[in-house]
Amino acid sequence: MNSTILENQTVERLARTFRRSPCQMNRMNESDAEIIRLGDTGVTLAITTDSIVEEIASGLYEAPYVIGWMAAMVNFSDLAAVGAAPAGLLIAETLPPDLTDDFISELQRGIEEGCRACGSFVLGGDTNFGNGLELTGCAVGVIDDGKPLSRAGCRPGQSLYCSGPLGNGNAFAISRFVSPRARSPFFPRARIREGQLLRGLATACMDTSDGALATLDQLMRVNDVGFRLGGCWRNALGAKAEETAHQASIPSWLLLAGQHGEFELLFTVAPDHEEELLRRAASVAWHPIRLGAVVSRPEISLEVYGKDTLIDTARMRNAAFTQHDNVKVYIQDLLHIDGELQKGIGHHG
Amino acid sequence: MNSTILENQTVERLARTFRRSPCQMNRMNESDAEIIRLGDTGVTLAITTDSIVEEIASGLYEAPYVIGWMAAMVNFSDLAAVGAAPAGLLIAETLPPDLTDDFISELQRGIEEGCRACGSFVLGGDTNFGNGLELTGCAVGVIDDGKPLSRAGCRPGQSLYCSGPLGNGNAFAISRFVSPRARSPFFPRARIREGQLLRGLATACMDTSDGALATLDQLMRVNDVGFRLGGCWRNALGAKAEETAHQASIPSWLLLAGQHGEFELLFTVAPDHEEELLRRAASVAWHPIRLGAVVSRPEISLEVYGKDTLIDTARMRNAAFTQHDNVKVYIQDLLHIDGELQKGIGHHG
Repeated sequence: MNSTILENQTVERLARTFRRSPCQMNRMNESDAEIIRLGDTGVTLAITTDSIVEEIASGLYEAPYVIGWMAAMVNFSDLAAVGAAPAGLLIAETLPPDLTDDFISELQRGIEEGCRACGSFVLGGDTNFGNGLELTGCAVGVIDDGKPLSRAGCRPGQSLYCSGPLGNGNAFAISRFVSPRARSPFFPRARIREGQLLRGLATACMDTSDGALATLDQLMRVNDVGFRLGGCWRNALGAKAEETAHQASIPSWLLLAGQHGEFELLFTVAPDHEEELLRRAASVAWHPIRLGAVVSRPEISLEVYGKDTLIDTARMRNAAFTQHDNVKVYIQDLLHIDGELQKGIGHHG
Repeated sequence: MNSTILENQTVERLARTFRRSPCQMNRMNESDAEIIRLGDTGVTLAITTDSIVEEIASGLYEAPYVIGWMAAMVNFSDLAAVGAAPAGLLIAETLPPDLTDDFISELQRGIEEGCRACGSFVLGGDTNFGNGLELTGCAVGVIDDGKPLSRAGCRPGQSLYCSGPLGNGNAFAISRFVSPRARSPFFPRARIREGQLLRGLATACMDTSDGALATLDQLMRVNDVGFRLGGCWRNALGAKAEETAHQASIPSWLLLAGQHGEFELLFTVAPDHEEELLRRAASVAWHPIRLGAVVSRPEISLEVYGKDTLIDTARMRNAAFTQHDNVKVYIQDLLHIDGELQKGIGHHG
């Protein structure tokens, strides 16, 4: 099923040349971070790399503090999604020659405070000079019992949860590109503690770095199952996000559809473990939100405009991939899909 | 002494905001890779990140296979210099939209074969799209006895060695920028095995990623000692490198001075350990080359134009840093320094 998704095709093409390490425990596309057993030490490492490039080039991230914070957070969020305890972050920076000292200070402060928010540290890095600002992080952590969370493992009949409010990432994007007066600050915190609590409990887990529906789409492909959300997703929308969408006349379900995610975790739990989930969550004053159910048909349905509607998540992911350098066209694509749903052209579940 | 070096100043300014992790064993500037003790697991990790940016922008690296190979090698070389056993490489790529499939295949093949040459694997990565091609690697490895090699620890009276021929990196740069007909292929191999053999033996070790003299300059600053090479450095020059310099009318000592290094290891050994070094080296058919001696005055001297001459390595490092976007001016700066030495304007040791 990966072949439908242009991004997966590209990643698979790029990785085709590479042998897999015998120490690597995860399969491709089935984990937010790479899981490595360290020889005969008995230690299982989680490690991941993620860059901030298009977000800067497109103007989505402009303030240096935000850029720094996000360079840390995108990486720690991948550790959260496998349930790892962070050991630290490396950060490689390509700096244009014309940056001011203030800009650089704010950038570094964002990185440092992003690490701090995840209970972690910058370990080191590399500095280069080039035309466009780019940051690449690499976060490393430990899976203390050697049993990471994985994207693979959920079954029909299980429940789907998210770790917190959805839509804040896309609301931020709306405030940047559609409705600049709608100020929607965005400082997501990787769900490190929650990821660790979910170990041994969640049957599948993935972070929403690409938005909720793209995340569900990937979980659908990995597990060959579907997700029925009904109207539950409305409970999960952040109040501020909904307000931003409303001000910009963007239908609120598109807060799940846009590809600028909120860095929450989407995860599934077997029915007989839901009580344990709520018990563990309550112990740390965490409020996971029930989003829907895992179903056997590999389809994703939401209640939109009063009807259970199948969402063509592949089309939306591919629009984001194709238009990665043209945000305005991408937003038009999403609004076009919404228009079809309003007219009842979409499929009804 | 770091304050003399613009690059060190910049790195220190960038790192000022960051707290150090209590798990981090190395001090800043004193190790080629970060050394991290993993909580109570007893495992010591070596981890490093290095990007290929200026080398592509300047045209130094053009062939995609070379770019891929070097993206792996610069990172594994840092692991070699601390004596780590590699666990793998993560690779983040920023790809311009106009790359051909052939270019990308060759790029990936270079990365894969670079890993293979180091007995290691690509573990994962990240793909982005942007205007300029950039690759950032992150290599991770294990120090099995928890005692890494460090840049700090050498004392006057010890011997200075290099792990193999010097000058091939700068000869390659000469073939790219000065004398294109001088074809000087460059596929350095990180000295992984040699780094591991040096554990418990070398009192200081650093890779020559920035060229031999910049490496000695940094070892001088970290250890507050100097290095006297006499004429020994001529024995260490690669034959092909010398030929390339000769063809381009570049004085051969500048093969040590240029900042495109050969990714060998420079290391020091106490006199009563030299026999053990040679024994270990012979056991794997490795031929380290004796380069000179550690001396107490923090100065670096070479025999050039028939005289022991103090080399202003700070000036050379700062020229490279200031002219990082203008290779031709940088080469003129080096030739100017050589001209002064020829005229006897330099200091004599």
